[in-house]
Amino acid sequence: MADPVNIATAFASFAEPWQPRRLASVNDYDVKVVRLHGEFVWHSHPETDELFLVRSGRLVIQQRDPDGTRHDVELGPDDVYVVPRGVEHCPRADDEVLALLLEPRGTVNTGDAGGERTAELQELDA
Amino acid sequence: MADPVNIATAFASFAEPWQPRRLASVNDYDVKVVRLHGEFVWHSHPETDELFLVRSGRLVIQQRDPDGTRHDVELGPDDVYVVPRGVEHCPRADDEVLALLLEPRGTVNTGDAGGERTAELQELDA
Repeated sequence: MADPVNIATAFASFAEPWQPRRLASVNDYDVKVVRLHGEFVWHSHPETDELFLVRSGRLVIQQRDPDGTRHDVELGPDDVYVVPRGVEHCPRADDEVLALLLEPRGTVNTGDAGGERTAELQELDA
Repeated sequence: MADPVNIATAFASFAEPWQPRRLASVNDYDVKVVRLHGEFVWHSHPETDELFLVRSGRLVIQQRDPDGTRHDVELGPDDVYVVPRGVEHCPRADDEVLALLLEPRGTVNTGDAGGERTAELQELDA
């Protein structure tokens, strides 16, 4: 059996934004820790919902319908939000945000957009 | 799209221990909030891992192998631990613990043990 992991220790172990680390796995789902700073890229995950749990900072999850209608949500510490599968979204953190993510194993950070912001999921010790 | 939910607000909305509430859902997985106080019952979940994230307090997750060998782990605030599928365990909180749980929809709190401690998953507003 694995040992417990500590969220604060996990965040202290890396500094780069937009580079998620695996905190824990439950069956074929991963809980990740990630630092967010600046604006990401618009993308969607056609196959899965994506959960954000904000630990510190303020995160705007910009969302838009296919017709362009916006449904932005703003999250502060302790706020949890689930981006439904298929919804185009683009996280924005004017100041650094620490967050947990939950999604199925293999979910790529840039979803259907791909491109240079795509990051391999890293292990905490890496 | 649903609104964000706040973890602190969620915990403030109920007081009973061992009565999990659904905080959020990701596909067919549920994130639950639960208060733990006292000792639960020994049980296992043959079909799934179960994640505990401690928000406050100290939680001992007692675990034992089929031969009785113990593998207890103690969690404090910010600690995350995953009980592997099939492992017999019994949470114990000498003082109240606030925790988040993550597991597939339909996972029953008492697992294969059943009995009077079995609790229906409740919604936050209920």
